[in-house]
Amino acid sequence: MSLSEMIEQMAKDAKAAARRLRSIDRYQKDAALDLMAKKLLSSKPDIIKENQKDLVIARAAGLSNALIDRLTLDEKTIISMAEGLKEVAALPDPVGEVTGMWKRPNGLQVGRVRIPLGVIGFIYESRPNVTVDAASLCLKSGNAVILKGGSEAINSNLVLAALLAEALQEAGLPPKAVQVIPSTDRDTVNILIGLDEYLDVIIPRGGEGLIRFVTERSKIPVLKHYKGVCHVYVDKFADLEIARQVCFNAKVQRPGVCNAMETMLVHQAVADSFLPEMIKAFQDAGVEIRGCPKTMALASGIIPALEADWPEEFLDLILAVKVVSDINEALDHIERYGSNHTEAIITRDYDRAQRFLAEVDSSVVLVNASTRFNDGNQLGLGAEIGINTSKLHAFGPMGLNELTTTKFIVHGQGQLRS
Amino acid sequence: MSLSEMIEQMAKDAKAAARRLRSIDRYQKDAALDLMAKKLLSSKPDIIKENQKDLVIARAAGLSNALIDRLTLDEKTIISMAEGLKEVAALPDPVGEVTGMWKRPNGLQVGRVRIPLGVIGFIYESRPNVTVDAASLCLKSGNAVILKGGSEAINSNLVLAALLAEALQEAGLPPKAVQVIPSTDRDTVNILIGLDEYLDVIIPRGGEGLIRFVTERSKIPVLKHYKGVCHVYVDKFADLEIARQVCFNAKVQRPGVCNAMETMLVHQAVADSFLPEMIKAFQDAGVEIRGCPKTMALASGIIPALEADWPEEFLDLILAVKVVSDINEALDHIERYGSNHTEAIITRDYDRAQRFLAEVDSSVVLVNASTRFNDGNQLGLGAEIGINTSKLHAFGPMGLNELTTTKFIVHGQGQLRS
Repeated sequence: MSLSEMIEQMAKDAKAAARRLRSIDRYQKDAALDLMAKKLLSSKPDIIKENQKDLVIARAAGLSNALIDRLTLDEKTIISMAEGLKEVAALPDPVGEVTGMWKRPNGLQVGRVRIPLGVIGFIYESRPNVTVDAASLCLKSGNAVILKGGSEAINSNLVLAALLAEALQEAGLPPKAVQVIPSTDRDTVNILIGLDEYLDVIIPRGGEGLIRFVTERSKIPVLKHYKGVCHVYVDKFADLEIARQVCFNAKVQRPGVCNAMETMLVHQAVADSFLPEMIKAFQDAGVEIRGCPKTMALASGIIPALEADWPEEFLDLILAVKVVSDINEALDHIERYGSNHTEAIITRDYDRAQRFLAEVDSSVVLVNASTRFNDGNQLGLGAEIGINTSKLHAFGPMGLNELTTTKFIVHGQGQLRS
Repeated sequence: MSLSEMIEQMAKDAKAAARRLRSIDRYQKDAALDLMAKKLLSSKPDIIKENQKDLVIARAAGLSNALIDRLTLDEKTIISMAEGLKEVAALPDPVGEVTGMWKRPNGLQVGRVRIPLGVIGFIYESRPNVTVDAASLCLKSGNAVILKGGSEAINSNLVLAALLAEALQEAGLPPKAVQVIPSTDRDTVNILIGLDEYLDVIIPRGGEGLIRFVTERSKIPVLKHYKGVCHVYVDKFADLEIARQVCFNAKVQRPGVCNAMETMLVHQAVADSFLPEMIKAFQDAGVEIRGCPKTMALASGIIPALEADWPEEFLDLILAVKVVSDINEALDHIERYGSNHTEAIITRDYDRAQRFLAEVDSSVVLVNASTRFNDGNQLGLGAEIGINTSKLHAFGPMGLNELTTTKFIVHGQGQLRS
């Protein structure tokens, strides 16, 4: 069987599994998730053994320590994966919710009911724990999933997938509801994203290159974000202590993630009182500042910002800083260089807060809070499979509801259209 | 300026217009819609003159009478377009609705607010009245739109677009919010669907060929349906009088549309009592019946159904008929040959009605009512820009809400992520 025949067969099996999942109730799904957690905990040695194979290859290939670290599964990470499964089991089941029901003048009762999307293709890099996270969210929302992980994690992913499939089987659910593609061939992604007859959505997670590759070629709708160039705008009427804390948190608390601040915009009226101390705090924390000329005039040790710095996602302890003449300039800057991901304003002024919330075209817009809150868990969605910055389907963090859609159900008594 | 430069400039202008539309209130949008209606009514001679140009070319090219008919704009169709504009003005504004708001344990107040999608690319064939319909729905939902109509309607579409832009200008709205591409070059579609930097969604409406072309090549998310292969299943426990009326309505009332019935499935227990009379009624109405062997044994004048008839969208007075042994066979048939569009069951049995509603994976599933009700107006959405049978964003008929998305807004008091 060729690679494309194998992947097409997996897609067919997934579609058949998805049909069965449509009418499975919460008890069965949660029982399967609990069983998955038990299997992981009782199979620690097997998982670690397979993970070691990946680690040996990774070390031989000279992967960085950071990547090796992300690839490693130990007792602790396995326990954490099992706990994640139990947390997903405890979340409410989105499927079957009637989101609205109304009566038409002719007596037809029309409702919308939440249903699974069907078959999800999930394409990701490195961390093998994502295999378990993604599988659990897809299963809980009634979807079948085909997982294509990073080639460096193939042995880890396959042993995890085998355990999950075992649990599905024992729980009376279709084992093909969760499948990992058992190949590291680079062509697998290309084949998978062409199977629009079987898959309903593709979710790629990883570097911008991977995501652009998938988006440009996929025949299947894609939920994704390319990058997070997140801004905090410190307004003329900001509480400067809140501004200092929020900006520091947004940049430093975890700089390598998509909801970290990349550019700080400061109203010129508070630049003198705010920037010198703020920049010192950043520099003390090891943050490199790339500033506009006005910023450079207010502190030392600043690198001149280039045009290329404004649309850049640094994912590191680097921050672009610009002094703006008013809120209009801040809004224009965000419109031009932002990535529709996350922006925050710091202000005590009611009208400016309202205007920023209304006019900024980003998936999460905050007043007086850190950009780091753009996260499904933090915003109260329960869990997160990713963030979408295209406007279609789900704008922003995607939880279980965002892995579903609604269909119309209609109760009639013989109504005809005239 | 080359064709692609021109279209890219239109896309840039649309994006700038979309930014302004974001914060425009309902009064202004409705005033523009009313002004558009007035302009159409006061410009009837101009519209008819431009439409005549299209008609002369169409006749010379030997277009069918049906197509000429769809292309023709007269006093009556112009009045009807103006009324359509007023109806859209009277619909509620979807933008700004807060669809939910909650408080997090740390005091953050998190809400989701409905916003426009941004820039919509609308690709369609023939009828010039669609230009006005689509423009009005996009404007009301706060979106800018680029319209690519059929080349045979180019003069009609351009005069309509000019009038709409005039109305926008006079109402103080950006005139580039509604633009018709002034070219009949076949490459325009290809160029438009590559402009993912500016457009947020593509909605193609027309033949399956056009829609597949767009879906396979577009870098922008596409909302579409290929075809509607709609089924009515007449159950063992059907009220046969309701079955007769609903099936007749679903097939005959308007056979050329996507929500008309294409295949009728009949439980074997009622085939004898139901089919002979039903088939006679269809045949009297000029419907050609393509039946399975059991159907053929119950009536005369039936053409044997081929395998190719089951997945076929006839869009005509042709009906495929199959006798099934039970509801499982009906569900399997729909799963295999259906198009996820619209299916109905006729039954008095509670369990079977519930099971059909739950298990059929179509955008609209009905009990004891005609498939012809899959329509935004009929289901109570107010108006309809199209039907989507992919699961993403909006499954089924799309009204004004479906031309929007939601973003998260967060009110904080200095919250930090730890």
